[in-house]
This record gives sequence, structure tokens and C-alpha cells, in this order.
Amino acid sequence: MEQAKLDVLGIGNAIVDVLVRVGDGFLVQRDLPKGGMSLIDAERALALHGDLEETTEVSGGSAANTVVGVAAFGGRAGYVGKVKADHLGTVFARDIRAAGVAFDTRPAADGPPTARCFVLVTPDAQRTMCTFLGASVNLAESDVDEKQVAGARVTYLEGYLWDAPQARKAFAKAVAAARKNGRKIAFTLSDPFCVDRYRADFQRFVKEDVDILFANEAEITSLYAAASFDEALQAVKGHCEVAALTRSAKGSVIVGRGDVHVIDAHTLGPIVDTTGAGDLYAGGFLYGLAQGHGLGVCGRLGSLAAGEVITHLGARPVADLKAYAAELLR
Amino acid sequence: MEQAKLDVLGIGNAIVDVLVRVGDGFLVQRDLPKGGMSLIDAERALALHGDLEETTEVSGGSAANTVVGVAAFGGRAGYVGKVKADHLGTVFARDIRAAGVAFDTRPAADGPPTARCFVLVTPDAQRTMCTFLGASVNLAESDVDEKQVAGARVTYLEGYLWDAPQARKAFAKAVAAARKNGRKIAFTLSDPFCVDRYRADFQRFVKEDVDILFANEAEITSLYAAASFDEALQAVKGHCEVAALTRSAKGSVIVGRGDVHVIDAHTLGPIVDTTGAGDLYAGGFLYGLAQGHGLGVCGRLGSLAAGEVITHLGARPVADLKAYAAELLR
Repeated sequence: MEQAKLDVLGIGNAIVDVLVRVGDGFLVQRDLPKGGMSLIDAERALALHGDLEETTEVSGGSAANTVVGVAAFGGRAGYVGKVKADHLGTVFARDIRAAGVAFDTRPAADGPPTARCFVLVTPDAQRTMCTFLGASVNLAESDVDEKQVAGARVTYLEGYLWDAPQARKAFAKAVAAARKNGRKIAFTLSDPFCVDRYRADFQRFVKEDVDILFANEAEITSLYAAASFDEALQAVKGHCEVAALTRSAKGSVIVGRGDVHVIDAHTLGPIVDTTGAGDLYAGGFLYGLAQGHGLGVCGRLGSLAAGEVITHLGARPVADLKAYAAELLR
Repeated sequence: MEQAKLDVLGIGNAIVDVLVRVGDGFLVQRDLPKGGMSLIDAERALALHGDLEETTEVSGGSAANTVVGVAAFGGRAGYVGKVKADHLGTVFARDIRAAGVAFDTRPAADGPPTARCFVLVTPDAQRTMCTFLGASVNLAESDVDEKQVAGARVTYLEGYLWDAPQARKAFAKAVAAARKNGRKIAFTLSDPFCVDRYRADFQRFVKEDVDILFANEAEITSLYAAASFDEALQAVKGHCEVAALTRSAKGSVIVGRGDVHVIDAHTLGPIVDTTGAGDLYAGGFLYGLAQGHGLGVCGRLGSLAAGEVITHLGARPVADLKAYAAELLR
């Protein structure tokens, strides 16, 4: 196998996050399930935007956040995702490149505008998301470069891609290219509601094609319709090479072929906004794997990155993760 | 092998607990490390007793609490431990028999009085213990009946027994009898300070003779001088058939030969006094094993028993554990 050019190539919905603090009543009035992600259409997106004040726009997207995390640790990362050639699309491309991630997907010249995700942060630091997928659903097979996938140690895919038939084809092309070239496939279940929508597909995909699975407690119990975390843990065992299961304040549990690691959450300060915690956990974890660390250390790097991102608004790291990692590994 | 007469035979220091609520300052003034167990002599025991008001005397002893837990679930339990023929000794024997545990160790006619443990409960529901071992250290080889050990599926031993040279011989006799008769040996590390005192002995014993190990996080990390819980988890793997590691509010992790279970804590109400949580966890767990349940269910029964005992003062169950277990297993 050729020397890898990238440690991690992320493929996902290219989204700009619109962050805003709201009270619990705001969610109740609009029937938005707290902690979940709802898909909304253009009309609802406009109406919601009209109801919001003091918003902050920051580049987001689950897999994009993850590869930014990999780059923040010093890993080599790339990203594939579709924006439109509009203001938010320009912002997205500028931010991800500034973070050190290779990003060459051609922006759409027409069609819907760049995707945005309204991240509604309640006083308990929980986030509830409403996503208008816009241009991101037009990610096409032609946007996936087989050579780029062949040159990445790990290709990291979002469950969210399953929501757009066109993007799903791009997803399948990336999986085939990784398989053909002996590269690893990492996958995040993305969201418990996403798992509900595609349970059978996801179960099959995890068992047949996924090498490294990321899921939080709600997602993995949903995947196997399990009554408890431990039941889900037993169910996933043997389905993939590694399953990294995150549990918020309870830390994470990593299930390897022959070993299980129980890793504590990493606290760096008061929790401000949990957006991106799972994305950054995956970023730290995959960086650790690329460096050849054992699963326990990968988990600690994931916890570290998640611990950093929840201490501030926004889903991308602001502190010096390289320095933190050096301290952790000392 | 003959049909077992007992599910669990506990051997330990027979102690009456003297419970009292104190402020944090009480511990600081007397240089008592919070959460630990200090051994005190007769003189200090008398002085401490003089400083305490509104005490409650209840039968305790770590292994005794565990076998009372087994009996509360409906299991067949026995106990071996030394009291003196004095008032507290009579209380101890009456209580453990009333709980349905076979207890036939002959009380000492002379020598030091029945052991007592001052359980100092601070406002955070933590308990700090000062133990005067009294008569319990005179448990002798002759008090262990080989036939009784041979007739018990599991013989459960306290690390605390190591503190008394005489009791240590009784311990060794029980281990030899269990080994000879193909029975299981369960062992609790008892206390992080106890592990500090006998680290090398305990490591060897765990590896060579223990089938079922119980330890909390502080104890297991102390045993292997590990920097994190996960490091201790990896170290204990393969050393015994089962290691059940308790983590207070974080639940427990059970390491079997080929599987690892991650079990949540069981909440039944506000936490009043954590005394006996580890003892009752072991009781529920061993009851589950005797019933032939898998390790995940054993862990849930352990969590249930621990969850019950921390909702009230005292280290023995007051609620109907049989009914709770029936609900859990439904």
C-alpha cells in the first residue's frame, strides 16, 4: 500500500452553524425535542431565522468539525462536502482551510443556498439543532475522488449523509474506494433520530463495512433497540474493529477486538455548550489512531478534545490541542 | 462435587458499627483521612467514643454485611467471625442470625471486647471509619470448619483479615479448603489503605487464588499503582475469572474472561450514607452468580443492593430486596 497522504478524510454535510442562546420555552413552543436534530425545509429555516436575535455564525458540520480536530492536533486532514458559491459557502471554505484542512470540493453555482444548522443552546448547556440541508444534499458521486480516498488512512463518514439520496451515492463511492485500497472506514451514527430513520441500513453497514464506529449512548442503544447501555455494548462487540461509545459526563467506553477500555471524561472548565463534543471526540481519537497509539490513549485524546470544545460556544477547538496532547502523553 | 449447602460463606472481622454524623472539622482535627479506614487501639477507641454524641449501634463488618445481603435476596449464606461473649457480641450474633445467616463461631470467653467500627458520616454522605479490632483478631484456624467451606459454592474473604496474624491463618485454611474441594474463592480488597499495607501479597493472592475479585476504584488503582482506572482495568484482566470494580456514582465495570460489562449505578432515592455500598454490591453480585445469571445481570443485582443500602443509615438492607430483584429480572 502506498504511503498515506492524509490521516483522515472526512465526508459530510458542509454546514454553517447559527448559534443562539434560547430558553427552554422556545423549544417547547416550536415542538423541538431537546438534544436532538430536526431537519427543516427552506420555509421553516427562514421563519426560525426571523425569530432569532444575536446569532453567531460559525462553520460547522459534524465530519468537518472532526477533521478540524484532527488538524488541530497536528494530523493531516481533508474534507469533502458541498456548499454553494454564496456568502456562507465562502465563510465555510475559508474557515476549514484556515484550520489546516485540505478542502477542494467545487461549490455549486446554482440551486439551494449553503446549508445552515440553527444550534439552540439552552441554559443547561444542551444543544438542540434544526438543520436546513440546502446545497449540502447535492454532494454528488463526482465530488468524491477515488485517489484521495485511496490516499487517506481513514475515511470518516457521517450518518447524516444518508438523508440525501444523492449524497448517499457519494457515500457508497467513498466506501467502495476505501475497501478497494485497503483503507479503513470510520462512521458516526450522528444522531438518535438519524438512527431511527435508518436502523436496518445502519446495522448492516456497521457489521459489513465499518472498521471504526463512533456513537453516543442514545445512538448505540437506538441502533440495537437495547434496554441499557451494557446491552448495546454487548451487541456491538465483534461487529467492527473498534467501537468508541461516548457517554457525556460518564466518559467513554471503547470496545476493541480483544479489549475494552473505560475512559473518564476530561474536564477543562465549566461546560458552556456541548455542540461538537462527539465530533471532537472522534477527531482526537482518530488522530491518536493515526499516531499508532493504543485504544486507551486514543480515548483519552478524544476525551481531551471533547473536554476543550464544550468549554466555549462553537464546535471547533480554540485552545492549543497540540500542547494539551503533549502534556497528556508525557 | 457434593451439592452445595451454602451459596456464600463469608469470613471476616465481626464488628459492630457505631454510627454518628459529624462535620468535616471533626475529621480534620483528628487527622482522619476522609473516606478511608484507620485502625485504632483500645485507648483511642475509648477517647473517640467519649467525643461522640447520639450514636447508633448496628451490626456491621464488611463480609458480614455482604452475606446478610445474599440472605436478603433469598440466597443461602453463612458467616465465620469472632466476637466476645459480651453485650455487643450478643447483639452481633442476634442480628446476623435474624437476617437468616448461619453463624456458629464460638464467642471468646476472655480477651479484648467485641470489635467496633466508628463510622463518621459527614454531610456529603461520605463515611470515614475508625476500627478497633478487639476480639475479631482472635479468629483462629480452629474457627474455620473445612466441611463448611467444602459445602459453600463461594467462600468470600475480606482483605481486612490480613491485618491480624492469627486471622490470616484462618484465611489461609479457608483458601486451602475451598481449593481442595473445587469451590470458588471471592475476595474484596476492602480499603485502599489496606491495599497499601499488603500490595505485593494481595497482587500474588489475586493472581494465584482468587476467582472473583471485588474492588472499588481507589483499591484497584492502588493494587496496581495505576495512573487511571482504565490502566488498572487492563492490569487486572486475566488475573481472575471475574473482577467486579465499583465506581460509586459511575456504576461498575465487570471484567470476565472474555467480556466486559459496564453497569450504571442504581438510584432508589437521595443518598444518606454510603456505608456498606461495596459490601452490598458484592452481596447482590454473588447472589446473582449463585442463581446462574450472566455477569451483566449480576452487576445489576449488585448495583440494586448498593443503591438500596445508601438510602438510609447503616450497612444492612432495610427494603425488600427480593421484591426489587423480581422487578429487575422481570
